[in-house]
Amino acid sequence: MTGWVVQRPGGTSDHLAGPPRTVAVVGTGMIGTSIALALRRAGVTVHLLDQDAAAVAGAAARGAGRVGAPAEPAELAVLAVPPGRIPAVLAEKQAAGLAVHYTDVGSVKATVLAQAEGLGCDLTTFVGGHPMAGGERSGPDHAAADLFRDRTWVLTPQEKTSASALSAVTDVVRLCGAHPVTMAAPDHDRIVARTSHVPHVLAAALAASVADADDLTLRLCGNGFRDTTRIAGGSVDLWLDILHGNAGDVAELLTDLAAELAAVAVALNRDPDRVAELLERGNKGRVRLTASSG
Amino acid sequence: MTGWVVQRPGGTSDHLAGPPRTVAVVGTGMIGTSIALALRRAGVTVHLLDQDAAAVAGAAARGAGRVGAPAEPAELAVLAVPPGRIPAVLAEKQAAGLAVHYTDVGSVKATVLAQAEGLGCDLTTFVGGHPMAGGERSGPDHAAADLFRDRTWVLTPQEKTSASALSAVTDVVRLCGAHPVTMAAPDHDRIVARTSHVPHVLAAALAASVADADDLTLRLCGNGFRDTTRIAGGSVDLWLDILHGNAGDVAELLTDLAAELAAVAVALNRDPDRVAELLERGNKGRVRLTASSG
Repeated sequence: MTGWVVQRPGGTSDHLAGPPRTVAVVGTGMIGTSIALALRRAGVTVHLLDQDAAAVAGAAARGAGRVGAPAEPAELAVLAVPPGRIPAVLAEKQAAGLAVHYTDVGSVKATVLAQAEGLGCDLTTFVGGHPMAGGERSGPDHAAADLFRDRTWVLTPQEKTSASALSAVTDVVRLCGAHPVTMAAPDHDRIVARTSHVPHVLAAALAASVADADDLTLRLCGNGFRDTTRIAGGSVDLWLDILHGNAGDVAELLTDLAAELAAVAVALNRDPDRVAELLERGNKGRVRLTASSG
Repeated sequence: MTGWVVQRPGGTSDHLAGPPRTVAVVGTGMIGTSIALALRRAGVTVHLLDQDAAAVAGAAARGAGRVGAPAEPAELAVLAVPPGRIPAVLAEKQAAGLAVHYTDVGSVKATVLAQAEGLGCDLTTFVGGHPMAGGERSGPDHAAADLFRDRTWVLTPQEKTSASALSAVTDVVRLCGAHPVTMAAPDHDRIVARTSHVPHVLAAALAASVADADDLTLRLCGNGFRDTTRIAGGSVDLWLDILHGNAGDVAELLTDLAAELAAVAVALNRDPDRVAELLERGNKGRVRLTASSG
């Protein structure tokens, strides 16, 4: 794997050179295009790449950047492709010399790192990333420059990660208006299993329960049902990828949750205190969430 | 139980007399006060009753009506108290002659009817009701005259229900801007177990899983987690009442759902098609929900 050096006037080092001025975004879906729009607004030169010509044209039409790889390596490439494709795309783009540093935006981190290492990727120039923003809608048409404003953006550097890589990625996170938080990849995966992946499965199971419902049942779905199932509208392919990439943590929590729900079902007829205890903990969780949202 | 007759100029019958002009609202929480506000706007004289002097004063201060029972029986009394209290309150208010006809707004219908019958209530003058509106916030301060606009409002008349009772309640539903839908009480309870009560338990279980979480975990709860758990902020006492009032239907569905989640946990490591099938049905459910919301 060739190492690239950014040439800058005056010979400043990467680390002290300030935020990246050229960024390549690989994958111009909703997240990739939103990053591109935020960086363009911050004055960064953005190059857009996507296998899907319509998606990259759509992103460019929204002013997200210019289509195609830069002539010189970009200072950073953001791989905004589904988690299952990140290792192969990282290997391919590093081999092609697309950029000096690399990051991704996937919801799963540890398995991606292991697979990238298995493919011989240079992990000194790569920092895994995961912005806590998104939605059930996909494609560049739903992108927004403000998507990441004041959101947490997890970064998962490893021992071997170079300081310049972490610095470049951190700068881009800040240019997007987000707050970088650094943690180990397995810690990230364990936490998002609880806060994102298991909730997705639950929302899907609830929404699935009205997939073949009669019209009367649909009329009796109020705002509560709609809110609780909103995320179930997300891309099936993307979520299969995420759930399989984090299968161990998700399966463990899902098994515990299934046991709790089965216990509550029994308690409904016999043990009001058990049901009350669940509802009270639910209230407490909501109070903590509301407080943490500022 | 004394039967009351509405005296009107010209001796028109109840059934043909047009919408009620005087309504008593018993229970001035968020739902009761919202009904009162909607009826006041429609020119109805509204009397407000609540055991909680602060709640009834709060509702009156918002212009929801006058405090205290009318001198003459109201044409309709709306019992906006928790489901577990409806039978006793109905018996008490019928004995006191508060109104000619009665309805409630509870999320559980069949057990309430059975208990009311057991207390000797006159069920010819009572029509169970359930507006598909509300929220996790309670109290008269969160009431809104528009809460029921274009919402479905279920009515559950029985064989013995008088035509004049059904007519009076239907008129009030329409004055609130809602769309009345008539069904049998057990059918209502079976449907809302799926569309409201089981989702509440799931939201509570998810929210409970972050009740004791560290700050980092809370920062990794995105909008998806927040939406999925929103309803878990609802009143514990009210929801205990609802869940116990519909324990049979809820326990059955919850048991099925727990089994499905446990199966998905196993499939995550072994059977991608099983996981894909769930996510696809979840997508389909969301499409149907979105279409039905108009």
